[in-house]
Amino acid sequence: MSHQSRFLRVPVEPFTVDPHASADDMLARMERISFQGRNLATARRIWERMLGEDCTIFLGTAGALTAGGLRLLIAHLVEHRYIDCLVSTGANLYHDLHETRGRRHYIGSPRADDALLQGDQIDRVYDTYASEAEFVDNDEWIAAFALTLERRPYTSRELLYELGRHLWEQTGGGGILTAAYRASVPIFCPAIADSSIGMGLSQARHRDATAGYVDVVGDIIESANIVIRHPRTASIVLGGGTPKNFINQASVQAEFYDPRVGGHRFAVQIVTDVPHFGGASGSSLEEAQSWGKLATDAEQVTVHADVTLALPLLVSALAGSARETLRSRAPLAFELAGPTMRVGGRPLPAARFEEHGP
Amino acid sequence: MSHQSRFLRVPVEPFTVDPHASADDMLARMERISFQGRNLATARRIWERMLGEDCTIFLGTAGALTAGGLRLLIAHLVEHRYIDCLVSTGANLYHDLHETRGRRHYIGSPRADDALLQGDQIDRVYDTYASEAEFVDNDEWIAAFALTLERRPYTSRELLYELGRHLWEQTGGGGILTAAYRASVPIFCPAIADSSIGMGLSQARHRDATAGYVDVVGDIIESANIVIRHPRTASIVLGGGTPKNFINQASVQAEFYDPRVGGHRFAVQIVTDVPHFGGASGSSLEEAQSWGKLATDAEQVTVHADVTLALPLLVSALAGSARETLRSRAPLAFELAGPTMRVGGRPLPAARFEEHGP
Amino acid sequence: MSHQSRFLRVPVEPFTVDPHASADDMLARMERISFQGRNLATARRIWERMLGEDCTIFLGTAGALTAGGLRLLIAHLVEHRYIDCLVSTGANLYHDLHETRGRRHYIGSPRADDALLQGDQIDRVYDTYASEAEFVDNDEWIAAFALTLERRPYTSRELLYELGRHLWEQTGGGGILTAAYRASVPIFCPAIADSSIGMGLSQARHRDATAGYVDVVGDIIESANIVIRHPRTASIVLGGGTPKNFINQASVQAEFYDPRVGGHRFAVQIVTDVPHFGGASGSSLEEAQSWGKLATDAEQVTVHADVTLALPLLVSALAGSARETLRSRAPLAFELAGPTMRVGGRPLPAARFEEHGP
Amino acid sequence: MSHQSRFLRVPVEPFTVDPHASADDMLARMERISFQGRNLATARRIWERMLGEDCTIFLGTAGALTAGGLRLLIAHLVEHRYIDCLVSTGANLYHDLHETRGRRHYIGSPRADDALLQGDQIDRVYDTYASEAEFVDNDEWIAAFALTLERRPYTSRELLYELGRHLWEQTGGGGILTAAYRASVPIFCPAIADSSIGMGLSQARHRDATAGYVDVVGDIIESANIVIRHPRTASIVLGGGTPKNFINQASVQAEFYDPRVGGHRFAVQIVTDVPHFGGASGSSLEEAQSWGKLATDAEQVTVHADVTLALPLLVSALAGSARETLRSRAPLAFELAGPTMRVGGRPLPAARFEEHGP
Repeated sequence: MSHQSRFLRVPVEPFTVDPHASADDMLARMERISFQGRNLATARRIWERMLGEDCTIFLGTAGALTAGGLRLLIAHLVEHRYIDCLVSTGANLYHDLHETRGRRHYIGSPRADDALLQGDQIDRVYDTYASEAEFVDNDEWIAAFALTLERRPYTSRELLYELGRHLWEQTGGGGILTAAYRASVPIFCPAIADSSIGMGLSQARHRDATAGYVDVVGDIIESANIVIRHPRTASIVLGGGTPKNFINQASVQAEFYDPRVGGHRFAVQIVTDVPHFGGASGSSLEEAQSWGKLATDAEQVTVHADVTLALPLLVSALAGSARETLRSRAPLAFELAGPTMRVGGRPLPAARFEEHGP
Repeated sequence: MSHQSRFLRVPVEPFTVDPHASADDMLARMERISFQGRNLATARRIWERMLGEDCTIFLGTAGALTAGGLRLLIAHLVEHRYIDCLVSTGANLYHDLHETRGRRHYIGSPRADDALLQGDQIDRVYDTYASEAEFVDNDEWIAAFALTLERRPYTSRELLYELGRHLWEQTGGGGILTAAYRASVPIFCPAIADSSIGMGLSQARHRDATAGYVDVVGDIIESANIVIRHPRTASIVLGGGTPKNFINQASVQAEFYDPRVGGHRFAVQIVTDVPHFGGASGSSLEEAQSWGKLATDAEQVTVHADVTLALPLLVSALAGSARETLRSRAPLAFELAGPTMRVGGRPLPAARFEEHGP
Repeated sequence: MSHQSRFLRVPVEPFTVDPHASADDMLARMERISFQGRNLATARRIWERMLGEDCTIFLGTAGALTAGGLRLLIAHLVEHRYIDCLVSTGANLYHDLHETRGRRHYIGSPRADDALLQGDQIDRVYDTYASEAEFVDNDEWIAAFALTLERRPYTSRELLYELGRHLWEQTGGGGILTAAYRASVPIFCPAIADSSIGMGLSQARHRDATAGYVDVVGDIIESANIVIRHPRTASIVLGGGTPKNFINQASVQAEFYDPRVGGHRFAVQIVTDVPHFGGASGSSLEEAQSWGKLATDAEQVTVHADVTLALPLLVSALAGSARETLRSRAPLAFELAGPTMRVGGRPLPAARFEEHGP
Repeated sequence: MSHQSRFLRVPVEPFTVDPHASADDMLARMERISFQGRNLATARRIWERMLGEDCTIFLGTAGALTAGGLRLLIAHLVEHRYIDCLVSTGANLYHDLHETRGRRHYIGSPRADDALLQGDQIDRVYDTYASEAEFVDNDEWIAAFALTLERRPYTSRELLYELGRHLWEQTGGGGILTAAYRASVPIFCPAIADSSIGMGLSQARHRDATAGYVDVVGDIIESANIVIRHPRTASIVLGGGTPKNFINQASVQAEFYDPRVGGHRFAVQIVTDVPHFGGASGSSLEEAQSWGKLATDAEQVTVHADVTLALPLLVSALAGSARETLRSRAPLAFELAGPTMRVGGRPLPAARFEEHGP
């Protein structure tokens, strides 16, 4: 008996165990199974496509990824230009700074006695601990840094570039901020006021009422202009949050001024949130297509998984399979010093959108 | 046979069905059952305690709550001072503005054909639709509003007060922003750059390079100073997101300058996210105690539920049971016009923290 | 400006607060909002339709609903014939028996010290406690009951009817099993071997090797024959689990023998699990349509919510609005004593499917 | 500055990318990060401990794992005795039989038009398709098999052994059932009535009223006796469901008759469900300790992840690191033919518990 149907074309190939398998091999076989295993394998293939085509890749990072141990992995993505522009929550950058300054996060327990932790001035993030005294010291270090800056509003992009520079000069250490500084990869932090970096800036303001101004509206314009400058873009979202929407907003805002922009061409998201409660973090990539955030013919996949489990496997595999593609890639060249960044040698305005006629 | 144990004290009382039950009655009976039903009932009791004690209540709103139909309910909470300070995502305020301007959200389907929707310029939020053309019109309306403001940075608090005033003057309509304007309840929007309000501001900037400056660092200082001015606070969080952390950050930052502050005294959160992926939205209130965001002896409860299901029941019940308490409540009196707000008639600084000796 | 689109037809009506609102009123207003609030309101309307049309309503109960305080609510549904046939996990029936025998569940904490609990012989179900000694006593009571039965295989349906009778005769107490016995509502428990009822039966077997035989394959036939006898059916699923699939399987198996059967006509499910991991509990009702478990034109809704929060509101509302419909309802009349049940006075075979020509 | 606290002992070591890394290497580095990445790495280490100590390992499989592509991976675990006893939902065994009989599952889409699928007789499981006609053919094949059996109740353990034998003799194909037959690994299916295997048995009964009797209560006794015979046990649970509780119940029931039994010594669970709704699938391993299902000093870990993503990585790593341990392992030797199984050459009763004095 044989059932003919257009729906029965590509059989599931059961995954076979191989103790010598590299991540690359494993994901290749996972592409023929079902559910989230396949989705992760598909994410690798789509990311390879992004790298092979001439497009600008945005990476959004939300959730306690750097506290959770993915800091050097994300720095690797920045340094080797698996991505072109990072959009992050403040916490991920702050935790990165914490470690680059030589402090650590510690493995703890999700079932700790939090009153005891408070007594010992230990801050808990699920199963991870950090020292509050060290955090306070970071805040003051950021305040002192902010007081060295000019007394004018900085976009978060410019501010974080200068922060990366300062960190590199003081520590010479690897990490996300220093890798982005050295590789001239812009970082946007749209919710910087909702983070300890913002708290550090507010402490600078406390000492000098003219310090600590961040121009987050300038960030909107710059991020849209990056899309307008080269209207082929891709979105990789880890965890959702403000970076997810900010990356999509850049595309929508760009399209308002330039009809050539038609939404991201590729999209990968690794999220644990779900669509049916209506929040942005869990929203589907199909929903993004209704808004024009994502092209209706985009290649896209959602992986429903914790990033600390999915990303090590995904990036290890990609490091194997995308090496040649990475080598021949010619990504956008950014110059990030100063209030006006440059892309490919030409200034990219921060105070007006670059318009294109239809 | 009878089992004696200190752990077996309060029996579950099975919920009984009563067709005439009010929300008030129902929640009273749900307090003796288990799991999330009880948690919701407990949330009502804790909220009543907040109202009855002399404390400042922060409400955080994240997720598409106003698009989802909770706009007038939240306005009711603002108008009748169930809460004292609102911290919101930009989207919730933008969708509120959309409706106050006479536009609507529409009931749709989560399984729509998003390419068709894009063709019709319909933006989808799970099962809810809105017109993109109307959204574009809102953005321009916001840009025009922003161009009427002085050319200086505004905290989001001041900006949103002026936006509420403008909206009230133009429409006379009810909603969150207009209720907050009329009741002098401050609204903070720490991630304003990640929203269509931010997009409107960026369009103002496009027309005039000196327009559209938001001082989000000033928001950090003002929100902390609200805590310092009256260091008994409570936190109600709907959905998590940036408002959740911003409300906690206000408490932590305040404590840095005033040792009398010891974390929120009461906390209620209604979230669907979970703790075990390490993100802030799902983080437990116990975890918040390790950081000192929440007092270790605080009354607190987490309800794991969609807000559109939980909040109508919760607030309907509260409207019944808390009426007297609300009537005799003497909440903080804010004056919100201008760069420096006033609390109880006295200016509250936006550029330095109010310090208290130990 | 006005946007014309066939997709923009039914506007969201923001929920308004009314302290005097009954559950009935509240759900009526929730039907015009979005996300899970609306889904719950829709569930009420669909359940009313089920009651008003001539159809057989299956209710599936999984998760610790009776331990959690919904025992009398479910008994109410059985007694007043909001439903016609119950399919349950063993745990829900066992916990019901525990309370009908006069024992209690207790309100505890999800963050208990479980080693201490074990020392005190307290069994924990999230935030609910019970005495292990009392559970052991139940097991022996069930074993003693099983030894009073004839030495032949009983379907779980017959066994649970006799258990309800025995419990009623011994205690005269209200509850699910006794309500089902008194109202002649059949209960199936397809995974009875995975429960403490099964453990009690195994202890009967230990004493007498000819005792404790359950004919779970007979249950498959009887449940399908209930569908064949009256091929208009509806499915209400709380929590998923084995009852969800068993109710669907009855429809599929029935259709194999009777082409008039075309899947359930109505379906409501309240689940917290999600579709994207491939498990049955979270599977969508759309997916059920591909299998023919549900008619492709069925009215259906999924509510993503904890049952202890959603069901009290839903059933309180239904008790108000469906009273007249319930009164005029003429549900299937079952006679459940003996190995062959009767429906409408006619025997319903347990060992062969009732066949209908096309 | 250096913060001394007993809570700050083991620093997080950020994961570093290595394109040549094997699964083994990767998991070794993931053990020093946080959240679910570490939990998966910990699961590997605990499984290695199970294999290295003299203990009986139960594996529970729920969710559509075999349809999803993990069939040969699970067969590998059975064949190479990474585990000693399998407890499964019926669906996983049925889908295994489907493929061993030469039929396939197919890669589809979670957003299919389910009415079209129904028209083509395609059954969907999230993103996976199968032919309903082929399923109907399986059911008849199972019915025919059941009619070859003796007319007496079979435990699911004996029935599935005979099914594995029949399948092996007819197809000579690899898979879970045939691997278990060949390796003499017992399989229990406590909810067999809630599956297509049960439906096949019911069709046998339809043809012969004396056929298709399953003694699921015998399964309870046999599974507990396996624990009593060698009271050092471990539990690995994939997805939760009836297998999770059945494996725990075996331990609890065994302890009732043999005080040497003190709960499983090791436990790993990979689940997506969460504890706070009170269901068994998501219940924590700490909760299991209150019941005595798990020893209070057991090594245990919960991984919150989809099994199709986590298990390929976990088992690939284990295949590398546990090879020597597996080789020197001397697991229980089962003989499974007939109504009374044998363990280590001695009969294991199916109708009474083996008792031990204190």
